[in-house]
Amino acid sequence: MRILIVNVNTTESITDAIAAQARAAASPGTEIVGLTPRFGAESVEGNFESYLAAIAVMDRVLSYDEPYDAVIQAGYGEHGREGLQELLTAPVVDITEAAASVAMLLGHRYSVVTTLDRTVPLIEDRLKLAGLDARCASVRASGLAVLELEENPARAIESIVEQAQRAVKDDHAEVICLGCGGMAGLDRQIEECTGVPVVDGVSAAVALAESLVRLKLKTSKVRTYAPPRPKRIVGWPASFAK
Amino acid sequence: MRILIVNVNTTESITDAIAAQARAAASPGTEIVGLTPRFGAESVEGNFESYLAAIAVMDRVLSYDEPYDAVIQAGYGEHGREGLQELLTAPVVDITEAAASVAMLLGHRYSVVTTLDRTVPLIEDRLKLAGLDARCASVRASGLAVLELEENPARAIESIVEQAQRAVKDDHAEVICLGCGGMAGLDRQIEECTGVPVVDGVSAAVALAESLVRLKLKTSKVRTYAPPRPKRIVGWPASFAK
Amino acid sequence: MRILIVNVNTTESITDAIAAQARAAASPGTEIVGLTPRFGAESVEGNFESYLAAIAVMDRVLSYDEPYDAVIQAGYGEHGREGLQELLTAPVVDITEAAASVAMLLGHRYSVVTTLDRTVPLIEDRLKLAGLDARCASVRASGLAVLELEENPARAIESIVEQAQRAVKDDHAEVICLGCGGMAGLDRQIEECTGVPVVDGVSAAVALAESLVRLKLKTSKVRTYAPPRPKRIVGWPASFAK
Amino acid sequence: MRILIVNVNTTESITDAIAAQARAAASPGTEIVGLTPRFGAESVEGNFESYLAAIAVMDRVLSYDEPYDAVIQAGYGEHGREGLQELLTAPVVDITEAAASVAMLLGHRYSVVTTLDRTVPLIEDRLKLAGLDARCASVRASGLAVLELEENPARAIESIVEQAQRAVKDDHAEVICLGCGGMAGLDRQIEECTGVPVVDGVSAAVALAESLVRLKLKTSKVRTYAPPRPKRIVGWPASFAK
Amino acid sequence: MRILIVNVNTTESITDAIAAQARAAASPGTEIVGLTPRFGAESVEGNFESYLAAIAVMDRVLSYDEPYDAVIQAGYGEHGREGLQELLTAPVVDITEAAASVAMLLGHRYSVVTTLDRTVPLIEDRLKLAGLDARCASVRASGLAVLELEENPARAIESIVEQAQRAVKDDHAEVICLGCGGMAGLDRQIEECTGVPVVDGVSAAVALAESLVRLKLKTSKVRTYAPPRPKRIVGWPASFAK
Amino acid sequence: MRILIVNVNTTESITDAIAAQARAAASPGTEIVGLTPRFGAESVEGNFESYLAAIAVMDRVLSYDEPYDAVIQAGYGEHGREGLQELLTAPVVDITEAAASVAMLLGHRYSVVTTLDRTVPLIEDRLKLAGLDARCASVRASGLAVLELEENPARAIESIVEQAQRAVKDDHAEVICLGCGGMAGLDRQIEECTGVPVVDGVSAAVALAESLVRLKLKTSKVRTYAPPRPKRIVGWPASFAK
Repeated sequence: MRILIVNVNTTESITDAIAAQARAAASPGTEIVGLTPRFGAESVEGNFESYLAAIAVMDRVLSYDEPYDAVIQAGYGEHGREGLQELLTAPVVDITEAAASVAMLLGHRYSVVTTLDRTVPLIEDRLKLAGLDARCASVRASGLAVLELEENPARAIESIVEQAQRAVKDDHAEVICLGCGGMAGLDRQIEECTGVPVVDGVSAAVALAESLVRLKLKTSKVRTYAPPRPKRIVGWPASFAK
Repeated sequence: MRILIVNVNTTESITDAIAAQARAAASPGTEIVGLTPRFGAESVEGNFESYLAAIAVMDRVLSYDEPYDAVIQAGYGEHGREGLQELLTAPVVDITEAAASVAMLLGHRYSVVTTLDRTVPLIEDRLKLAGLDARCASVRASGLAVLELEENPARAIESIVEQAQRAVKDDHAEVICLGCGGMAGLDRQIEECTGVPVVDGVSAAVALAESLVRLKLKTSKVRTYAPPRPKRIVGWPASFAK
Repeated sequence: MRILIVNVNTTESITDAIAAQARAAASPGTEIVGLTPRFGAESVEGNFESYLAAIAVMDRVLSYDEPYDAVIQAGYGEHGREGLQELLTAPVVDITEAAASVAMLLGHRYSVVTTLDRTVPLIEDRLKLAGLDARCASVRASGLAVLELEENPARAIESIVEQAQRAVKDDHAEVICLGCGGMAGLDRQIEECTGVPVVDGVSAAVALAESLVRLKLKTSKVRTYAPPRPKRIVGWPASFAK
Repeated sequence: MRILIVNVNTTESITDAIAAQARAAASPGTEIVGLTPRFGAESVEGNFESYLAAIAVMDRVLSYDEPYDAVIQAGYGEHGREGLQELLTAPVVDITEAAASVAMLLGHRYSVVTTLDRTVPLIEDRLKLAGLDARCASVRASGLAVLELEENPARAIESIVEQAQRAVKDDHAEVICLGCGGMAGLDRQIEECTGVPVVDGVSAAVALAESLVRLKLKTSKVRTYAPPRPKRIVGWPASFAK
Repeated sequence: MRILIVNVNTTESITDAIAAQARAAASPGTEIVGLTPRFGAESVEGNFESYLAAIAVMDRVLSYDEPYDAVIQAGYGEHGREGLQELLTAPVVDITEAAASVAMLLGHRYSVVTTLDRTVPLIEDRLKLAGLDARCASVRASGLAVLELEENPARAIESIVEQAQRAVKDDHAEVICLGCGGMAGLDRQIEECTGVPVVDGVSAAVALAESLVRLKLKTSKVRTYAPPRPKRIVGWPASFAK
Repeated sequence: MRILIVNVNTTESITDAIAAQARAAASPGTEIVGLTPRFGAESVEGNFESYLAAIAVMDRVLSYDEPYDAVIQAGYGEHGREGLQELLTAPVVDITEAAASVAMLLGHRYSVVTTLDRTVPLIEDRLKLAGLDARCASVRASGLAVLELEENPARAIESIVEQAQRAVKDDHAEVICLGCGGMAGLDRQIEECTGVPVVDGVSAAVALAESLVRLKLKTSKVRTYAPPRPKRIVGWPASFAK
């Protein structure tokens, strides 16, 4: 099967890292295609950039013209998953929700460790809407921006480990979710430092996407995610115009 | 003061109707400027169109180059308000939330009557995120699409009244919110038929926007709605590129 | 229009301060009438005194014999608003709820800073019943009694600022509500010290009351706030006897 | 031990019926004293009357000058219990909460059947504040006013049974609470008709009050229910003046 | 009346202590019968042991062949109460729920102080399912195992008092529930140290069980707790085989 | 990898059906081992039988002496999963939770269709504890007992389809979960009749268990699911005795 994994920001090196992490998690026979949006912010850290990414991700997927079996939106706490579900027949998995769903199989409560403090409310809101917040002990910020994760991995691990340890000790988290696509690959290291299972959202999403494809399950089309009604769409982006 | 009221769809006649309703609700001395997005769907009835509208509304406001005091996003249950709040210093009011806030001052529980059934979950999600759902008795759909409201007002009133009456009788609603920007102007007629107060979101939003301006209150900028960090944004729309 | 603003305690100087704050927030053409209950406690800081105030406020409004357009109950976290809504045809606004409604337009989460610790549960209960608690980060007490606010304003500001700062830092509040009628007038000073918007309940209530009057909206009378059924009421107060 | 049971309305015959029901439920050695408020409405069916009753109940208990061990407030869904708890050292039990607490020991979900539809929101609000609503399947109204229960017991039983049966069948209630002090004595008859346990609030309150007295447990005085602070109270009622 | 109180673990000395505490709380004329399970763990501190205890308690009660009026399951946060309710016609009271129900009559919020940290989630889950968690301020662990309570009572009191004091000060608890059957008898001492009412679950359960018997109330049998359908049960324990 | 799938009842033919369904869902290279408890009820439909099954499932897994990679508990709404998680190092997946987790990836709300009405509250409770209830539209009963599903498959499909259709139409479910291990194999047929995705819990659990094994994720052992402390366990079953 072929799974598209779409980065939410326009930095190619993050797409590469995400795709590599996805490939490491994929089963034999699963092809991972990493996609970078054609427009938007170099890193997504707030509502404006996230809304723009929502459209850019839809645009990128719609303009991909090969067959595929499932789509992963690889942004933590970002907008747009519902729109993709309307537009596509293939199943769609968001890494925020994938990580939470998997974490809930492993411990009584989980925490998310993310990048900047300003993204915490976005993640909290996504988990609330997804109905996956009841067992969320906390969403904690390491204080590092997305691009800093790439620039200084050692410091990134240190600050993430610190927040993960506080989540376990103070918030009674039993599982840690890595709350940023750019954190892909850090999970085993952090697991060693904290003693609790660490769920990487990209890996979790790959596993869930493969699961849906194998189970032949697709998005329900009867109400919320019914295809958009045929109507005139003006202007931009070209992929949407009718 | 000057208040921008931004339609979420690209149909000018709806912008005109919304602006007229806003003017009727405004205090003397308040100038209402109706804006139509430069791209997007002719009517917004689902997540994909709503996400596109979110960006189109931000684009339209950013490309407005006169001073203004507040912005109203005139779409019911639509995405994007949080992005506007990040980008602007002026206060932002969403008509979905404005209607609910005002309704809660008037009765123990309120219901929303909207257009198509597929938009019900969007409105429910917006109210849940806004923390205004605890006293929401129901969100009901009249079954009419946005553009049908304009084409056949008599039928629109009939179907909205029917749902409003069921909301009062079956769901114990004590106030009705008109859940569509395009329903502007129908409130008094429906109030007569149902015997309960009817809150029009556009009017409520004008009153709240005026209130915030008079009270000199602006969006908090310390965390969730802090201005976007300076970063490279590629591609489209031109209003966002840096 | 004329708005009655009713103090919950029997200290006239607080009525004066509240009315002055209301006048500062009112639009041109709005007349503010401050009313002091004819019985009850000199300051209201607990359930017993609050219940007594509930009746005293109703008594005071019923014995006011001039026309008016709206009523504001100027007690934070106090009982009685639902009773007023039953008795009156004019709209009724409670300052606790007004502050929360306005705060929710300005930030993702808000905190309330009030007087004594013992009043915290009353405010929490009022917000829960009003369905405005989902985005309340905390209710914090400055430790000062109502009457101390008047006696030592400098110390009052200091202790309120301290709690407001902790609400922002520890509880992630993005907006502060001043949780006591007697705090009227301190908002701008505290805003400067904390960097977040500060909502004064009295001002917010004036703006909302004016909004309701302008929108010609009144309390729903179909169920919860239907007028009391005609029946024999014995004893006291004279204003209620039938 | 001596337990005061205070009617919320001023109709003596209801006090007598309540006291009789309480006596039937009391253990040997428990003396039941029925008290009627000295002012207020002949029957309490709404917020205004309920707030007045809250004060009248406090006044009646404070002016009772014999020793007692516990106090029961015998109104369903009424205001005032928190005020009594502040004023007294003896434990206070509200029949609404007593019925719910006992019902939750007997079945997975319970429903309340009360008098008029307008009192439903009051009961729902009391259960929500008491934190006893999570397993409440519904609050249903028989449509009969309080005083009609006395006038036409046969019709009262019929309409209460009908609502109880619908609660069991449609709302999946497994226990019924009789939601009105005036329904005292109907429990066994309704139990026979519905096949589920029926909890009479007065009886439940007597049992819980006796339990607290036997266990030597009293209201916590550290925060919410601390005694009112010494302060000047003007006017009325005489029992409160200082 | 005769009340069976069933220990959840197989340590006889704890059964003796529980029964003694129950007798101290019982009314004259109530006979308390302490029962020890015939199999299971010497102390129950986790899900596996708790599930085993659930069956062992049912086995013990079913194999008791004298008449009785009510059953108390004397384990804090343990599984099994619903099974007993299905099997028996006599009412069943769980000490976790009894303590919470009684605590809620005494203060605005309560905390539970239990033994090991690992049992905290079990208690939280039991309270959530029982719908008694809304006013629970916290569940805190003293860090002492069940059997250590017996071995070193002085140290037990010290560590429980410390947690109780933190619950009152930091979590705003107004009542403390002793969260372990083995803590029976420590309530008065801890009450003196903390200044808030302390509810012992065993005593509370005795009072509630007596109340149900006096009120002639039994478990509802219409749905959740209907008797098991007749069917073949193989193997063990002998008391269940059919 | 090898996955154990444990039936909750002692009917071998159901084990066979479950194992066959699991095999159909498994990836190549996954070995499915179906296990039948050594004691307990022939079908599990209520709390008593479910608690007995909880222990029987633990006993059966502990007495399995070959290596394995994950365990699936194949009972819908049954007790015991937390106990297995304590006892094992391999990950544990419950079919109730697996179905809900997968359903939430496919639609806005899901419903469960189960067997007897009496099992509805058990399923509701399991979903609440798992924190997967926020998007559950309803749990509906077909009215057929577990063993009747095998005896009369045609009638089973008919009654399940009817409830599924009502869930979609009346409760706004967008996905249906088949709420009984014995319903394995009916999913495609029901999907055709209702037009919404149907999630079979056994298949979903296999996919999730495989996912956890591939991702090398195991149950967190820091708190709730830490291994039982070493202690004396007397009596039965032999697999537990120490």
